[in-house]
Amino acid sequence: MTKKQKSEILSLLKASKTILLFPHVQMDGDSFGSSLALCRALRKEGKIVYILLEENIPKNLAFLCGANCEDDCSEYCVEHIDLPEAPDFCLAIDCSDRGRLESRTELFFSGKKTGSIDHHVTHEVFADHTFVNKDAAATGEIIYQVLKEMGLSIDKMTAEALYVAIVTDTGNFQYSNTTKNTHLVITELYDCGIDHTEIAVKLYQNMRPEKVKLTGIALAGMEFFSEGKACITLITQDDFKRSGAFFNESEGIVEQLRNISGVEISIVLKEDKDKLKVKVGLRAKKEANVALISQVFGGGGHEKAAGCTIEGSIEEARIKIMEAAVKELARISGK
Amino acid sequence: MTKKQKSEILSLLKASKTILLFPHVQMDGDSFGSSLALCRALRKEGKIVYILLEENIPKNLAFLCGANCEDDCSEYCVEHIDLPEAPDFCLAIDCSDRGRLESRTELFFSGKKTGSIDHHVTHEVFADHTFVNKDAAATGEIIYQVLKEMGLSIDKMTAEALYVAIVTDTGNFQYSNTTKNTHLVITELYDCGIDHTEIAVKLYQNMRPEKVKLTGIALAGMEFFSEGKACITLITQDDFKRSGAFFNESEGIVEQLRNISGVEISIVLKEDKDKLKVKVGLRAKKEANVALISQVFGGGGHEKAAGCTIEGSIEEARIKIMEAAVKELARISGK
Repeated sequence: MTKKQKSEILSLLKASKTILLFPHVQMDGDSFGSSLALCRALRKEGKIVYILLEENIPKNLAFLCGANCEDDCSEYCVEHIDLPEAPDFCLAIDCSDRGRLESRTELFFSGKKTGSIDHHVTHEVFADHTFVNKDAAATGEIIYQVLKEMGLSIDKMTAEALYVAIVTDTGNFQYSNTTKNTHLVITELYDCGIDHTEIAVKLYQNMRPEKVKLTGIALAGMEFFSEGKACITLITQDDFKRSGAFFNESEGIVEQLRNISGVEISIVLKEDKDKLKVKVGLRAKKEANVALISQVFGGGGHEKAAGCTIEGSIEEARIKIMEAAVKELARISGK
Repeated sequence: MTKKQKSEILSLLKASKTILLFPHVQMDGDSFGSSLALCRALRKEGKIVYILLEENIPKNLAFLCGANCEDDCSEYCVEHIDLPEAPDFCLAIDCSDRGRLESRTELFFSGKKTGSIDHHVTHEVFADHTFVNKDAAATGEIIYQVLKEMGLSIDKMTAEALYVAIVTDTGNFQYSNTTKNTHLVITELYDCGIDHTEIAVKLYQNMRPEKVKLTGIALAGMEFFSEGKACITLITQDDFKRSGAFFNESEGIVEQLRNISGVEISIVLKEDKDKLKVKVGLRAKKEANVALISQVFGGGGHEKAAGCTIEGSIEEARIKIMEAAVKELARISGK
């Protein structure tokens, strides 16, 4: 981040009349909350601002813009837009690369100017003007700074959108990205009147029963190997049927396995609908590098969180992935 | 809280040479973290300070005083003590009433002076000098203020003990007790060099596999009634056997059921070893008052969290508690 980068973005936000905001595809609390906050604050200044959606607003975030988003925000959270002329400024929010714009890429580059505000360490520049602060725990933290420096008023709803951006991206201040400044920003959001208890209820007490059931089935069926250093669970199509959960609702299970005492590598296998391939989620706690495991099967990811797809039955995949995990545990123990 | 209350406690801490600290029975992160922080800071001043334990240090908190607490803190975390004369000052930490001292009551009142530092709204005065700040999210927040006002140095280990006190008592800043000041104190603890990521790993990535298995079994077996407004799960002695979990390791399950979308009342039934009685945990989300349900069976608790014991088999208890829950749901819907 340089002062110049920031001041360029601020100048463009001030000078532009029509502004389109682009949260990343598979929108999360940070990209949506940050976009909402910036949108609201700029609209209060009389600007024409829209948030361009790639997909529906996630159910657990819909409260940010009124009940089920059928309220006021629907007028500025849109999937398509017809403007009489090209937008003055198209701004990507929390997008680490242009791929995160997906089907909106053309619209983004139709802007007279393009910009990007982000906090990802891996940011790949794709816009005319880029303001990246890799020390920020969330893009919401940067947006707060932007609003403040522009002298824009931050009302309760705007502050709550920023609060959601920050708490979701920091795992409630637990992740390593959290800093002193993160908490400092939160103290100022409290001054704006946020109701953090209400937000916690809306964010976390709204789980789909089917997802909770699937989690239960997966945890009850977990198995340990390598003297408890690795833990695996298999989720079959039958388990999805029994629970009624969607394929993507296994989210969070692999972390729960990793959180078990003594477990260094955790693995979740999900049987595909056609039963011909298996999706694998991998986590490591301290020393293991699960990216090395996923790479064996053509997958990707980071040291502590990776994934891959294995062709074949879930039982075949189980044997293959367990072998790879045993190997990785041997590697770190130097055997 | 009055300024006088605080200054009395501060004066006594300054004047006393021998100080005994009493965290509450069933020690949690706040009472232990607060006691440790105060103990360390006062010891650095050359005072003779001990923490009197009612029971073993909880496994997930042992890291605060070195590996498994076999390290340095064992010398000042003690279950018994022999002093040549009565201690100058006995100070209860985070104890809402004298009952929380349990078997240490006599020792506490053997102090030449007695004091109490607490944040519970329900605090019942039992010591000579009481400093209660009901606006503090955790007693750790008050201890921080005490150390600061006494001009005592807060090293990394002391700051981490206070951090644990605050994060555990606020559910990572989610609960309603969290305030702007809570986050402000945290920013200052960051200045003392805390490693919040390491703490999160130690606090939350250290679950007993048996507990996780029991959670899985309980979630997989949950049932809904009253059109999904209530959710119940039964944990039998057989479930404890299958998972290998202890009786108290069902902790947290009733909250997971409450967190399900649409659920207003959640219930966990635990079959007792003798299979002649059943322990009941109850939670409410928004409108229901589960204390009204627990009272039917001679139990107690709060509006949103209550418990009771029902005589008889788990199947009998299931029918009785479901009837009571249906009644409570009818009451709040005005039927």
